[in-house]
Amino acid sequence: MGFDSHRTHTRKIGSAPGTLIDLPVTSPSRLWAVHYRGEEMHEHLDIDLDDARALVSADSVTWIHIQGQPDRRLLDRLGEVFDLHSLALEDVQSLVQRPKLDVYQEQLFAILNLPRWNGEGVELEQFNLFMGEGYVLSIHAGEEEVVQAVRRRMAKVRTRLRTHGADYLFYALMDLVVDQAFPVLETFGEEVEALEEVLLERPSRDLLSAIYQHKRNLMILRRQLWPTREVVSQLMRGANDEEYFAPDLQPFLQDLYDHTVHIMDLLETYRDVVASMLDVYLSSVSNRLNDIMRVLTMISTIFIPLTFIVGVYGMNFGNNTKSPWAMPELNWYYGYPLVWGVMLLIAAAMTIFFRRKGWLGGSR
Amino acid sequence: MGFDSHRTHTRKIGSAPGTLIDLPVTSPSRLWAVHYRGEEMHEHLDIDLDDARALVSADSVTWIHIQGQPDRRLLDRLGEVFDLHSLALEDVQSLVQRPKLDVYQEQLFAILNLPRWNGEGVELEQFNLFMGEGYVLSIHAGEEEVVQAVRRRMAKVRTRLRTHGADYLFYALMDLVVDQAFPVLETFGEEVEALEEVLLERPSRDLLSAIYQHKRNLMILRRQLWPTREVVSQLMRGANDEEYFAPDLQPFLQDLYDHTVHIMDLLETYRDVVASMLDVYLSSVSNRLNDIMRVLTMISTIFIPLTFIVGVYGMNFGNNTKSPWAMPELNWYYGYPLVWGVMLLIAAAMTIFFRRKGWLGGSR
Amino acid sequence: MGFDSHRTHTRKIGSAPGTLIDLPVTSPSRLWAVHYRGEEMHEHLDIDLDDARALVSADSVTWIHIQGQPDRRLLDRLGEVFDLHSLALEDVQSLVQRPKLDVYQEQLFAILNLPRWNGEGVELEQFNLFMGEGYVLSIHAGEEEVVQAVRRRMAKVRTRLRTHGADYLFYALMDLVVDQAFPVLETFGEEVEALEEVLLERPSRDLLSAIYQHKRNLMILRRQLWPTREVVSQLMRGANDEEYFAPDLQPFLQDLYDHTVHIMDLLETYRDVVASMLDVYLSSVSNRLNDIMRVLTMISTIFIPLTFIVGVYGMNFGNNTKSPWAMPELNWYYGYPLVWGVMLLIAAAMTIFFRRKGWLGGSR
Amino acid sequence: MGFDSHRTHTRKIGSAPGTLIDLPVTSPSRLWAVHYRGEEMHEHLDIDLDDARALVSADSVTWIHIQGQPDRRLLDRLGEVFDLHSLALEDVQSLVQRPKLDVYQEQLFAILNLPRWNGEGVELEQFNLFMGEGYVLSIHAGEEEVVQAVRRRMAKVRTRLRTHGADYLFYALMDLVVDQAFPVLETFGEEVEALEEVLLERPSRDLLSAIYQHKRNLMILRRQLWPTREVVSQLMRGANDEEYFAPDLQPFLQDLYDHTVHIMDLLETYRDVVASMLDVYLSSVSNRLNDIMRVLTMISTIFIPLTFIVGVYGMNFGNNTKSPWAMPELNWYYGYPLVWGVMLLIAAAMTIFFRRKGWLGGSR
Amino acid sequence: MGFDSHRTHTRKIGSAPGTLIDLPVTSPSRLWAVHYRGEEMHEHLDIDLDDARALVSADSVTWIHIQGQPDRRLLDRLGEVFDLHSLALEDVQSLVQRPKLDVYQEQLFAILNLPRWNGEGVELEQFNLFMGEGYVLSIHAGEEEVVQAVRRRMAKVRTRLRTHGADYLFYALMDLVVDQAFPVLETFGEEVEALEEVLLERPSRDLLSAIYQHKRNLMILRRQLWPTREVVSQLMRGANDEEYFAPDLQPFLQDLYDHTVHIMDLLETYRDVVASMLDVYLSSVSNRLNDIMRVLTMISTIFIPLTFIVGVYGMNFGNNTKSPWAMPELNWYYGYPLVWGVMLLIAAAMTIFFRRKGWLGGSR
Repeated sequence: MGFDSHRTHTRKIGSAPGTLIDLPVTSPSRLWAVHYRGEEMHEHLDIDLDDARALVSADSVTWIHIQGQPDRRLLDRLGEVFDLHSLALEDVQSLVQRPKLDVYQEQLFAILNLPRWNGEGVELEQFNLFMGEGYVLSIHAGEEEVVQAVRRRMAKVRTRLRTHGADYLFYALMDLVVDQAFPVLETFGEEVEALEEVLLERPSRDLLSAIYQHKRNLMILRRQLWPTREVVSQLMRGANDEEYFAPDLQPFLQDLYDHTVHIMDLLETYRDVVASMLDVYLSSVSNRLNDIMRVLTMISTIFIPLTFIVGVYGMNFGNNTKSPWAMPELNWYYGYPLVWGVMLLIAAAMTIFFRRKGWLGGSR
Repeated sequence: MGFDSHRTHTRKIGSAPGTLIDLPVTSPSRLWAVHYRGEEMHEHLDIDLDDARALVSADSVTWIHIQGQPDRRLLDRLGEVFDLHSLALEDVQSLVQRPKLDVYQEQLFAILNLPRWNGEGVELEQFNLFMGEGYVLSIHAGEEEVVQAVRRRMAKVRTRLRTHGADYLFYALMDLVVDQAFPVLETFGEEVEALEEVLLERPSRDLLSAIYQHKRNLMILRRQLWPTREVVSQLMRGANDEEYFAPDLQPFLQDLYDHTVHIMDLLETYRDVVASMLDVYLSSVSNRLNDIMRVLTMISTIFIPLTFIVGVYGMNFGNNTKSPWAMPELNWYYGYPLVWGVMLLIAAAMTIFFRRKGWLGGSR
Repeated sequence: MGFDSHRTHTRKIGSAPGTLIDLPVTSPSRLWAVHYRGEEMHEHLDIDLDDARALVSADSVTWIHIQGQPDRRLLDRLGEVFDLHSLALEDVQSLVQRPKLDVYQEQLFAILNLPRWNGEGVELEQFNLFMGEGYVLSIHAGEEEVVQAVRRRMAKVRTRLRTHGADYLFYALMDLVVDQAFPVLETFGEEVEALEEVLLERPSRDLLSAIYQHKRNLMILRRQLWPTREVVSQLMRGANDEEYFAPDLQPFLQDLYDHTVHIMDLLETYRDVVASMLDVYLSSVSNRLNDIMRVLTMISTIFIPLTFIVGVYGMNFGNNTKSPWAMPELNWYYGYPLVWGVMLLIAAAMTIFFRRKGWLGGSR
Repeated sequence: MGFDSHRTHTRKIGSAPGTLIDLPVTSPSRLWAVHYRGEEMHEHLDIDLDDARALVSADSVTWIHIQGQPDRRLLDRLGEVFDLHSLALEDVQSLVQRPKLDVYQEQLFAILNLPRWNGEGVELEQFNLFMGEGYVLSIHAGEEEVVQAVRRRMAKVRTRLRTHGADYLFYALMDLVVDQAFPVLETFGEEVEALEEVLLERPSRDLLSAIYQHKRNLMILRRQLWPTREVVSQLMRGANDEEYFAPDLQPFLQDLYDHTVHIMDLLETYRDVVASMLDVYLSSVSNRLNDIMRVLTMISTIFIPLTFIVGVYGMNFGNNTKSPWAMPELNWYYGYPLVWGVMLLIAAAMTIFFRRKGWLGGSR
Repeated sequence: MGFDSHRTHTRKIGSAPGTLIDLPVTSPSRLWAVHYRGEEMHEHLDIDLDDARALVSADSVTWIHIQGQPDRRLLDRLGEVFDLHSLALEDVQSLVQRPKLDVYQEQLFAILNLPRWNGEGVELEQFNLFMGEGYVLSIHAGEEEVVQAVRRRMAKVRTRLRTHGADYLFYALMDLVVDQAFPVLETFGEEVEALEEVLLERPSRDLLSAIYQHKRNLMILRRQLWPTREVVSQLMRGANDEEYFAPDLQPFLQDLYDHTVHIMDLLETYRDVVASMLDVYLSSVSNRLNDIMRVLTMISTIFIPLTFIVGVYGMNFGNNTKSPWAMPELNWYYGYPLVWGVMLLIAAAMTIFFRRKGWLGGSR
């Protein structure tokens, strides 16, 4: 997950605000619509934009969904047909990846980020929602059609989706997108706990870059999801003023808001845990390395006096046969075993001393 | 205490908000009710839900308590009988573990977390409270029936519990749940002080994971209890507006609020203390290891010049009998003792030098 | 200073709010009263509670002071005689150690913490203040009667204390308690500066636990005094609304508020300074230890090549008299002095090299 | 990028506020004007100030642009001709480098910072904007004429620039300046990612000063751009009150605001990433150095017992032919190969031990 | 710069608020006055307080300035003559060093801190300002008469100082005091940049205490100047309400406010830079020390196998002439040169190995 998504798609600096540009679109987008009123419901899986527009009326709900990043031509057409503000279209195209809510005269426009776990890390796909009188227009710049869950629920008569208006559909889609964060965070949590276990039992060096990657991903994820809370909060506060939302939807918006708060809570907890893990990792590794050095140094230290002693009897004073002071030890009967005895004594004394002091690895 | 309680119980992503699911319930829940009006009071320990509902009237107080996590069937029945919002029931089931207060048209709904020390760490049990006209419904997803304390107090006539309405009962139960944090924090505080003593006297390596565990638990506990303050604050501010609470309960709510503030204060203090302990631990361990290395290195350093000297007299120049420059020391009468003398002198000089410099462990 | 003062005195969990308990009281409390109106003033050093109550009238000021922690019986009597709220009495008894201001219907109730330096660290003594119509009731759970300073000032006719009402007396006592922090902080500041001097001149290991203790005490002190500012601020804002305070006392409350801000400022400065000291200490100690290791290692490094050289001439090739390649150096006339010369040269070269590189301790 | 830009240009302390001073101006400034009304548009590339002023009328828009830092004489003239406040002129001259919006009676005055990447780091150029009735006056203290982008867009009839008033021109120029941050941040992001790659693959020491430089630049850049958000926010809130901006410009200001928020987001993300990089770098370097030390120490440790053994057989006890205890090994038939065998065994055993313990670099 | 300025001058604890005390005053204070109305202006360099008071009238401006800390007698007289509140006088005397603004019934009272660079660090001198109807009273507890700059500007007729009232004089003096921070910060910035250069090129140990001193000074300076912003902000907000300031002074106050914001910005930037420097310094020093240790250890490591080899041929097996296995190498014709060859080979191989691994200092 790079933090540079602003690069490729930003409008050319100096061009007029609201200017669309020709971008290479990797896969074509698909458009379908669902239209319902009371117990009636029709799915139009193969429809063009103008026909979809014709379905819209004040006393029914039309849901138009575009799966995949729309090309410039389609965006231009969308703008004309639904009278969308050019700045909103620019935002749809730029994949700006910062959730926000804009209130235009004719529509409500929300951008959300739909997080997905791609096997290694988190990816964010932009999800755009327009709501006008009698219709909801959703654009999801991703491969997998996650909105199918909502379409399936809609199939049943007398569900809340069918008995409420466009506002409930708008809410249901937001709820769907926001809740996508939970399985992703679940996976994240599992990874963090796996790391934690490794950390406390056998801290290996690969942990460092794993922890760094998690920390970095969390930082970016947090910044990208943070504004979602603000979007839902704005929706709640504005629900009555703007009369976009029926009053009985307030508990549902409150519930959605609680979900966003819960997501931020989890993210912050993970962030704190990962930060703590870094500290513990660093001190673990440093402790382990210090231990090795300590043991090695202790081995050297035991041998150094012994090496000195054998050096002493390597001196050539013994050749001097004229002086009784010239290394008489060399000529003692038990001289050699005595030296060994002294050396073993010294080694034993030092080992005992180190153990008493608790300097050997065992006790701590 | 894991931070992943959201995993198992969250509603399936994409299903309708307010959908209950079938969950394995480990132990069956128990339901009992208490009904009182003035000096009368009846306990119904073996009652079914409909009979309990029938007790409710505007001029008496009915307290219905469910101990243990209710299964789906019971939740469905509760929803019907008391007209509870489906989102509230979903929250009861999901064990969402984030305190909050929801104001529905017919009821006040509060979720609290009841912290318990399980011998090793802190566990949180969800405590749900509904208040409607003339009744309080409490659901405690835990084993031990802590609400017995309130039921016992209620047994006496003329206690505040008996002379006030459902609002005071609601408050009394919140007070009970909030105060459960004190013995837990007391235990926590004792553990922290025990760690502190170990830290300053003999920092052992096990401290690291102990401190890490405490830090992590405090982080999670803080996030889980933090919103409680907000719940009580909402209750205080709303007490007059919504007319859920009699005006003379205001000082009690204020008192409850002070308790939540006190709890957060203690948690923050512990957190800061534990963070400081980590710093001190790390530097203690590092100091101790450095000390060992220093002493060991000093031993080596003293022997290295001596080893050099004995090496000198191990050279075979003395075999060269033709030159007076060829190690004449070997043939001196006191050559050998002299070498020993020089070596002892050097060792003494170095020891004194190190002591003067304060490099020996003793002075610092 | 422990952070667990909540332990012993908290009301038993589950008992009714506002319940007093029997606590062992170490020393009996003393009660006295002062009553003044215009130029009259009477001191009643040996008075019982009912007589003191009888002195109270709307057009005079009665100051009743209790020195020492009152026992349960006295608190019960106080509650009856002055109509005090049971929650306030519980707070007085629980030594809850968090400053706060409660506004009851009949009284203003403030809890303050009076900090005292006990020779080693800071202790906090609870100071309770009640103000009702025509009287001030102060309870100081400590040994030394610090309020004597106010009583002495009162002795003079025409001081502000005598010419104003109960509100000014309430203010004067708060001012007295708040100002007790200054000499404590002064002592603290002196200790910190003493530590600082030690730190920069000769960082010893005892500093670590001294700095840790200071950091910990500052953390706790800060949390305990912090709410005092809020109490005074509430008093200032409410002074006109509630008509508890005459308008001309506003500058005095402002002055008191400035004192609390100044105290918090000093505490924060100390905290930052102590945190910085910890960093500097850690790096000083680490630098110092590194220095020692560096010097020791340098000594070893100089001797190691020399030891190698003397080892070379300890080889027994010289015994091979058949080969002219067998260590002919041993038979050179100036062989031995030459070896010494080479060794001295190497030692000198290495020393110069190290000095050039700036690796010797002197230059840095 | 230094943080001391306040030095050279600040008004002399003690002189009257709003005093202009004579400053050396490195290159002369250029002035041109564009005047348009409906479909008419005239460019005046070589015009003097009074003529430019004469173009201004309430029902047309005159854009006067000054490229380069104006000298004192020109500023004095600007003040007189457009009735600008002396404090605003002082700000233009002082290159104060803190974005702000001042509302004077006759004009709106905004200071922005235009960030430019100069090949090594970021430079900030001051961009001043005045808007009065019917005119916009822009002063850009830099070399490159970035406003040309807006002039080019203006060339087309029926663009928003031509159909709106001075307010839209003011907005368009702010949008241009704010958007200059994106390519700079893009370059920054690329540099950070390049550093990141180096960090995780082969952390070299030059990274330290590179990371430090980035951290420092981000700190300064953040402080310099931060107030821009406030400026746009003020503009949005004040747009209706002051009636400087037409209501249909509100979405454009909102869009501009989102850009500033996005820029701050990127800066904060970079800052956090760079801070994390520093931590990881430090521990990488320390790990790497520890590794080297460990391997070196292990080599020594293996040789030290061997050196001891050869020392043993360098002792001269063998010369003592009278005692059977005097190093009989020397006279064994296979003595010498045996010693080698023992030594190889010891070396092998130690190597295996170290490998088992995982102390060799390979496994971790 | 100590943080204990509260020590010596605080009112005795327990004495009445607003009590002045007798303090040793090191140098006598000087009093002078300037009186102007329209084009008239008179300077009274040798005037007593009562005469100065007599000059004050509603339609002229009298500026009375006291240079140096006034003694108790003068303060008492000031209080009587200008009817100053006793708490304000106490603040003047206590050198409380926390900027604030107090609004009394008859006067506006501001305390500011005037920072001065004393060659080594920053000193703060208290500057007190009273404004009443028709007069400004300024008291500067310092040596150097910085207000002369304002008096000189006043000498000219038709300057703003002469054409406006007491409010502009009050503003001009505040502006003067606030702007004194710029040269101090300039010096500070130069010192920080000098340190930075030293840091990146040759980090010496003295840097540590230099950085610590700067960090500490910045912490204290920040706390002392921070409230200045609040003072100016209060002045701005209150300027219209209280009618102390003419409406056309609003831009000047805004300008002053911007200066205080700029000062805080610089202080925060310095603080962040110094904090970063500490991190970089610590890792630089640690890197450098590690380098030395690495090189030294490498030298040892190269010599240790060589020393082992020469030790081998120092063994006395060669004396055993009976066994062909007894160190036959000693008797080889080219034995000795061969050993040297092997040793040189080993040394070369190790050096190459270390260089390949990049363990030699050069490459990193």
